[in-house]
Amino acid sequence: MYIKMSEPNYAKLEASNPHLDKEKPYPLAGILVVDFTHVLSGPTCTRMLADAGARVIHIERKTGDDTRHMGPYIADGSSEYFRICNAGKESIALDLKDPKDHALAEKMIAKADVVVENFRPGVMARLGFDPEEMVKKYPKLIFASVSGFGQYGPWSKQAAYDTIIQAVSGLMDATGEPNGKPTRVGTSVSDVVAGIMGYSAITTALVARERTGKGTTIDVSMLDSTFSLMVQDLMLALGPHEVPHRIGNRHPDMYPFDTFDCQDQPIAICCGNDHLWGLLSHALGHEEWINQADFKTNDLREKNWQKVKNAMQDVLKTKPAAEWDKILHEAGVPAGLVLNVDKTRRLDQIIERGMVKTLPDGNEVLGSPLKYGTWNSYGLQKDAPKLDEQGEQIRKEFE
Amino acid sequence: MYIKMSEPNYAKLEASNPHLDKEKPYPLAGILVVDFTHVLSGPTCTRMLADAGARVIHIERKTGDDTRHMGPYIADGSSEYFRICNAGKESIALDLKDPKDHALAEKMIAKADVVVENFRPGVMARLGFDPEEMVKKYPKLIFASVSGFGQYGPWSKQAAYDTIIQAVSGLMDATGEPNGKPTRVGTSVSDVVAGIMGYSAITTALVARERTGKGTTIDVSMLDSTFSLMVQDLMLALGPHEVPHRIGNRHPDMYPFDTFDCQDQPIAICCGNDHLWGLLSHALGHEEWINQADFKTNDLREKNWQKVKNAMQDVLKTKPAAEWDKILHEAGVPAGLVLNVDKTRRLDQIIERGMVKTLPDGNEVLGSPLKYGTWNSYGLQKDAPKLDEQGEQIRKEFE
Repeated sequence: MYIKMSEPNYAKLEASNPHLDKEKPYPLAGILVVDFTHVLSGPTCTRMLADAGARVIHIERKTGDDTRHMGPYIADGSSEYFRICNAGKESIALDLKDPKDHALAEKMIAKADVVVENFRPGVMARLGFDPEEMVKKYPKLIFASVSGFGQYGPWSKQAAYDTIIQAVSGLMDATGEPNGKPTRVGTSVSDVVAGIMGYSAITTALVARERTGKGTTIDVSMLDSTFSLMVQDLMLALGPHEVPHRIGNRHPDMYPFDTFDCQDQPIAICCGNDHLWGLLSHALGHEEWINQADFKTNDLREKNWQKVKNAMQDVLKTKPAAEWDKILHEAGVPAGLVLNVDKTRRLDQIIERGMVKTLPDGNEVLGSPLKYGTWNSYGLQKDAPKLDEQGEQIRKEFE
Repeated sequence: MYIKMSEPNYAKLEASNPHLDKEKPYPLAGILVVDFTHVLSGPTCTRMLADAGARVIHIERKTGDDTRHMGPYIADGSSEYFRICNAGKESIALDLKDPKDHALAEKMIAKADVVVENFRPGVMARLGFDPEEMVKKYPKLIFASVSGFGQYGPWSKQAAYDTIIQAVSGLMDATGEPNGKPTRVGTSVSDVVAGIMGYSAITTALVARERTGKGTTIDVSMLDSTFSLMVQDLMLALGPHEVPHRIGNRHPDMYPFDTFDCQDQPIAICCGNDHLWGLLSHALGHEEWINQADFKTNDLREKNWQKVKNAMQDVLKTKPAAEWDKILHEAGVPAGLVLNVDKTRRLDQIIERGMVKTLPDGNEVLGSPLKYGTWNSYGLQKDAPKLDEQGEQIRKEFE
């Protein structure tokens, strides 16, 4: 895979890409979402709803969403954190303790298809919008709550942050070298995955509502969502009742299936069978490895993995990773460079798939990973709103 | 949070939990899924469909799904890998190159609401089931493909494994210590998240089909899905155009927000403001930290984070992590133990949420993180099928 590293003109490239046809209808066109979310898990969920063409009205406090006051900032002073979470949405600033604003919020809920919130459990009830009560009152409503530990259970009221969930879920303990320390995943994966699970639950509930007319509450937690990522370790813990242990970057049962140091940076190489091992041995100029007594089967390579790794790295360290990447791909060996995301965003594959897109104001945000033949696959097309940008219009519409 | 570590009787506990009422209707009841998937990303998607109550018919090759032959195995010789991916589904073994079996598969597709596959792009077309052609022929069909790099784009035909996607997406480079190496996330997060995104796209398309009558192809990739997890680093790379760098377990802007060594094992502690810092300083018996010149604001603590960490660890190392966990929670300081998933699965919160459940045959599998008020939140209730277990019945039904 040849990797282009210039600064891409995303807007120009997307305009000529038929897969990203911006005129296609959206799958959730006509769905109204009232969005009480803040920071990361909830806004990820409602951004996905905006990508699918739902109208998302983001209710912010009078001082604005927390992320408006968190970096990184761009030259005009606006927060990129807020942008990546809230592009494509409308904004209205409300004080939910003010009776007039409270009444407006309830009028919006009454007309909504979906409400999403990610306060700590109990907060919406204290604000007068208890999820169960709201669904009783508006039986077609889908009222989704995303939280750290869930709406019920002994831990439900405890404070949760991504780092705490990564710790408690087993994810951190599973990540890193066996002789090193538990390692946090270098993105807020527990927040983001809870947001995606929230979206999954909402769309599931929308299907059920179309078929039965019934709404529902939804309760998605960061802990449940992160725990459900742990499939390999859970196989061990739930099946043969073995305690899993972290093993660095390598695969538990196949070798070479790991990262390897080259002259400049690491490369991932994945050879899960003898055929691929043969291709790799040729590509590295060591055909003798194919029949070597301690390397010739996967079981032997797995047993002697450190020796295999050292032998491979002795060769790989003679050239830069990008050269090896080219050589290995031409040889049919599955491989990939270990890239910083600032390089990933410039890959032709990422650009062609519209995974970075340009808003009308010229700012760039994450694209949508959900691609359809019939429906719009570009996702949201509106700039991140200014605080209360649509407030006046929304008040007129719902009051 | 008090952590119980006995071997839980999941079946007994779930029976008395009203949130896990097994009699509730399923949100996707009546939806027929034909499942051509194998190994991990595809089966994760179809397992979620089974959790939502869809009927999932898993088409296996005559020798069985690959994961039937992958460990870990339990005492009866069955694969736990297969079980965690395929419980709740029906199985039919087909040779898609045999004309009779091929015709049966097409009859199943003709009646299906959803088809899911995760072969390399082009394989379904070579088998005579080109996704676009199938949707033209059966216009209400939703035909979902999950792949490494996607159905189009310059990399679409390349081999992808979770490790390669973690490398290329930027996730591995973002994970680990700044002076250490890029670190693979200790679960196949790229596979699993692509499966969840596949589920999201399918349910979105089902909503659209209910409203318009139109089916669609779906194209979800592991690379797009993993890239979309990288929100924090993308804020830097797309906003101010800075190159992000991994920073271990700590938060980029808040301190203490990190993991800390205790006498026996680490604990995560997250204090994002001066109020929590005050509570923490009291709990650790160092009230003088609150007004200490180099610790008193978040900016100072962030600047002097290594000094803060050392000072905290000097105290934390005097007691085991579980004791500190109790002390800190009583003091109102957000904290969580770094647990192995074999401990996580025994947490009262995980059990109460039904995140491990017992199949009729007595084996335990992962529960569903999607919890609803109106709909079944327990998820699938059927054992993993034996190879071709429902084959005869399915042949009679569709031939």
